[in-house]
Amino acid sequence: MSRIIIIMGVSGSGKTSLGLALSQALQIPFLDADDFHPQENIDKMSQGLSLNDSDRAPWLLALNTLLQTHHKQEGAILACSALKESYRVTLSRKLPVEWILLKGDYDLIYNRMRARDHFMPAELLRSQFDTLEVPSYGLQLSATDSLETWKTTVVQQKNKKHFGIIGLGVMGKSLAFNTLSKGIPLAVYNRAIGNESTIVSDFLKETSTPLCDGYTSIKEFVNALHTPRKILLMVPAGQPVDAMINELTPLLTTNDIIIDAGNSHYVDTERRYKALKEQQLHFVGVGVSGGQEGALKGPSMMPGGDKTVIDSIWELKAIAAKVQGISCANYMGPDGAGHYVKMIHNGIEYAQMQLLAEVYDILKASDYSTAEVAALLEAWQKTGVKSYLLGIMPDILRKEENGTPLIDLIVDAASGKGTGVWSSKNALDYGMPATMIAAAVQARFSSSQRDLRISLAQQYGRPTTAQKVDVQMLFEAYSTASIVNHLQGLALIQAVSNNLNWHISLADVAQNWRAGCILKSELVARFALELAKNHEIEELPLIKAAFENDWDSLKQICKFGIDTNVPLPCFNAALTHLFAFTQAQSSANIIQAQRDYFGAHGYKRKDIDNDQLQHTNWTQQ
Amino acid sequence: MSRIIIIMGVSGSGKTSLGLALSQALQIPFLDADDFHPQENIDKMSQGLSLNDSDRAPWLLALNTLLQTHHKQEGAILACSALKESYRVTLSRKLPVEWILLKGDYDLIYNRMRARDHFMPAELLRSQFDTLEVPSYGLQLSATDSLETWKTTVVQQKNKKHFGIIGLGVMGKSLAFNTLSKGIPLAVYNRAIGNESTIVSDFLKETSTPLCDGYTSIKEFVNALHTPRKILLMVPAGQPVDAMINELTPLLTTNDIIIDAGNSHYVDTERRYKALKEQQLHFVGVGVSGGQEGALKGPSMMPGGDKTVIDSIWELKAIAAKVQGISCANYMGPDGAGHYVKMIHNGIEYAQMQLLAEVYDILKASDYSTAEVAALLEAWQKTGVKSYLLGIMPDILRKEENGTPLIDLIVDAASGKGTGVWSSKNALDYGMPATMIAAAVQARFSSSQRDLRISLAQQYGRPTTAQKVDVQMLFEAYSTASIVNHLQGLALIQAVSNNLNWHISLADVAQNWRAGCILKSELVARFALELAKNHEIEELPLIKAAFENDWDSLKQICKFGIDTNVPLPCFNAALTHLFAFTQAQSSANIIQAQRDYFGAHGYKRKDIDNDQLQHTNWTQQ
Repeated sequence: MSRIIIIMGVSGSGKTSLGLALSQALQIPFLDADDFHPQENIDKMSQGLSLNDSDRAPWLLALNTLLQTHHKQEGAILACSALKESYRVTLSRKLPVEWILLKGDYDLIYNRMRARDHFMPAELLRSQFDTLEVPSYGLQLSATDSLETWKTTVVQQKNKKHFGIIGLGVMGKSLAFNTLSKGIPLAVYNRAIGNESTIVSDFLKETSTPLCDGYTSIKEFVNALHTPRKILLMVPAGQPVDAMINELTPLLTTNDIIIDAGNSHYVDTERRYKALKEQQLHFVGVGVSGGQEGALKGPSMMPGGDKTVIDSIWELKAIAAKVQGISCANYMGPDGAGHYVKMIHNGIEYAQMQLLAEVYDILKASDYSTAEVAALLEAWQKTGVKSYLLGIMPDILRKEENGTPLIDLIVDAASGKGTGVWSSKNALDYGMPATMIAAAVQARFSSSQRDLRISLAQQYGRPTTAQKVDVQMLFEAYSTASIVNHLQGLALIQAVSNNLNWHISLADVAQNWRAGCILKSELVARFALELAKNHEIEELPLIKAAFENDWDSLKQICKFGIDTNVPLPCFNAALTHLFAFTQAQSSANIIQAQRDYFGAHGYKRKDIDNDQLQHTNWTQQ
Repeated sequence: MSRIIIIMGVSGSGKTSLGLALSQALQIPFLDADDFHPQENIDKMSQGLSLNDSDRAPWLLALNTLLQTHHKQEGAILACSALKESYRVTLSRKLPVEWILLKGDYDLIYNRMRARDHFMPAELLRSQFDTLEVPSYGLQLSATDSLETWKTTVVQQKNKKHFGIIGLGVMGKSLAFNTLSKGIPLAVYNRAIGNESTIVSDFLKETSTPLCDGYTSIKEFVNALHTPRKILLMVPAGQPVDAMINELTPLLTTNDIIIDAGNSHYVDTERRYKALKEQQLHFVGVGVSGGQEGALKGPSMMPGGDKTVIDSIWELKAIAAKVQGISCANYMGPDGAGHYVKMIHNGIEYAQMQLLAEVYDILKASDYSTAEVAALLEAWQKTGVKSYLLGIMPDILRKEENGTPLIDLIVDAASGKGTGVWSSKNALDYGMPATMIAAAVQARFSSSQRDLRISLAQQYGRPTTAQKVDVQMLFEAYSTASIVNHLQGLALIQAVSNNLNWHISLADVAQNWRAGCILKSELVARFALELAKNHEIEELPLIKAAFENDWDSLKQICKFGIDTNVPLPCFNAALTHLFAFTQAQSSANIIQAQRDYFGAHGYKRKDIDNDQLQHTNWTQQ
């Protein structure tokens, strides 16, 4: 296993001494960055001129290339002051760098340098101290310690693992397999109580690679990890996350990172982020989508928190899904932005699932057999609306048991207590009409009152008036409704991001959703490509086309539902959205007049420019 | 001003001594309850038999009648043990009773009685102590104090006011006028800062009655009130309520009552209720509806909290709206139940307002002039759907300015941040499909994005295809949709009440909404009458009729919206509800299969009776 170690710090902090000692101990070549300056820089420095950042750029890039070459062999140790974050970003491109910062105060290092060189100008060192941007990651060694202490500390890390995963449930186990498949040294932990007693040992048996250590003692697990530690939690959202954090924090050291990859509510993530910051620990909330298969082969990852911390967790990009070589693990924003984006991802997913359920219901009302529905949806996959969710429908519909479609044996009651409800409440909090997500959640609620439905159906149900739906219209309505659903979700993210100053890039969001997640689809890919070129959602060609469309198919499908007594809440919500947002004059003036009539709430006037509220005594003519 | 004082307590506690002393001091007749027993009771007692509750009933009723007569004159002081709450309820029917409990411990009173009568049987007194239900209201005097102390305490209350109101905004002022019009002695308080500096003095000038005192010092206001004090807050919901409570509590004494009559969120009410209970103070959350006019003439009041405490605030029933002599101020339930019911009242109101806005929009799309809409809706008021909100529409539509309908000058953007949003979030929390409230809130959200709407309308708007709506169909659709809206709201209250063990009576809820509030209507009156006879909402003739209906009118109206490009979210939600709840087989089996496919969430099977979740590997045929 190849290690890339970069020792950084101001002049005179001891980089070379440590580098040489480590090179001997670890049997890895030592490189001094100053030996690799291009001729222009050497010329400039020999004229007594100092280098600026554009002088340094080619040199840093060359060093990065050099390290990449070494990484393919036995690795390397580089001594380089690397005072600025931007230098470090260049140096570590595509590399799993172990950073070591030699830290000391000005007086100590100044005196040490004077002892070596009486002509050393004090202001040079002072400017280095001023320039130094202390990283929030990496191993930090004190310049007052001995070389021997440094060496021991670093060598001890040799057998430590780069990444830790807590929780080997379906998702955690799949992420662990994924991590190991990328050659990342991994430690895993799971408690060994009750029916979980053999989870860790079973996992180790299954993997059997020296890359992986497994623990049932949290203390041993923590000690097995490189500092700063990167520990990914995959435990159920809610109280278990807090319990795990409380168990972990006393064992951690400054700058260690806890990564919550569960389906946590973003408000909880914000709370935890703040609490850990006070303890000088980092907390990163990562939304992970893709189910078991995604976790195993590469999920979509939506990280939120401190950008520099997230950039240092290169393992996320390594294990995430990739589209044309680019990882679906873009940084989403600060605080709870990662879990927030994941929440809305799931909200959109709720409505996409509901649309497919409505499509199925319409086709059933048109006397399609289950096999015919499967064949039709399979054909749709080839016509520009390909998506993961549409793609699984034929599998689902073709699954049979003794000649009966399994779908007919499944209880038609869906619960929805999690991310769909959260998304809907979030839309309410921010005054955004995410009507399709809400309709999908409400449809689940109605379905779950199954006893009442059946009783009312017995008393008042009427046969669905058999009609044949025009499947081309259904296809077009489904396409348009899907676009409206994504539009509403993205607009909600935009509104919340603006409100909280999160600066979420919708292009990065869509890029993250292109692969690995449940929402992945040709539509999302088109959104990603169009968002990369346009800032305003309304300017996207996709959205323009949906609004320019004559909506005839969507209208016909909504009418088909009315004629056949089939509830189509999501299709209706899509059509209502198009109507409402192209209505220059809404009927809300009636609402405002009513509110002023009975509650004296006031209203604004079209012919008065300022925002002052007017009040009228309506009964006085 | 006539006072009715009842002195209660066990035998020998000093009721007669205090009663006689007070009679002299206050110049009001003294009555001893024991003097008014009917002959049957006297006979029974003289045989050494003790009275049971059915013996006592006619006697207590007679005492109440007697007190009512005295109340019309100078008042009366009654001494009566009144050990049980049920006795006190009978005694105080329709009367503003000032209760005084003489409290002492068993040993003290036993010794005192033995000093008077050595043959007094100890077990008789013991059984009285066992029976005594100490009231949570009224003035409590210690039996160890002297008669002189008692008298002074009671006489000092003579000039004190029965009821206090804090906050003389539009609503508070109207409630204060209302209270005074019922002859209830009132103290009012408002701070005197900024533009509020003359509020109290202006109010006193306007009322000029000795029934009313006004204060700008909170301490003087509190001292002006009878104990236990009944203080109604009419200040803006949220932080101002907490601030006012914090200002008040140090000045209050045990058993004083704070009544929050603002639009507080019911969860805040629960929190405040608990906090004040710990300080031995009572907190009552009262939902008040009816706007300014209701507050003045009699609002609908929805009180929640401790039932005995609320029963003691007879002033609420006095100032509330009345239907055939019955006050619309029924007890709703414990904790925050009063504010909760008010919240859902407002949620239903949101959807009723939106339905009327949609009716207006449909008629406008049918080329009705504003005056024609006014005339049509005025005619509707006479056809069984009469309601407050429908009734104000003609006034609104007929208001003109220089020949232009004022409605055309009002900005068509409605905000909705309060009770509508709260109701929708509550429905989400409890898994109930209150789709019409949600649709009304979302319609406000869409309307408020006015700049975007106008910009999109310019690019993509299309003329509403002129068609004439069938107004009889519109009327029927409006009636059916209104029923579905009330059904959804009441079902939500029922579900939350069941969940929280609040035992809210929907009949009492509907009864409270029959007058004084924004929802008052013939429909609510029908609900109240039918709910009084039926426990299950689905058994109401009104609901049965809505489900039996062929829904043709509602269907035609929804289709009219589709054909004319008019968004009708609330009408659509009503129709979808009828479809969804008469669908014996919903399409949620598709949702469940999808969830199991990608997330291994499991599903239930129709042919397996237990609730165990099944999982399928869907890709394996």
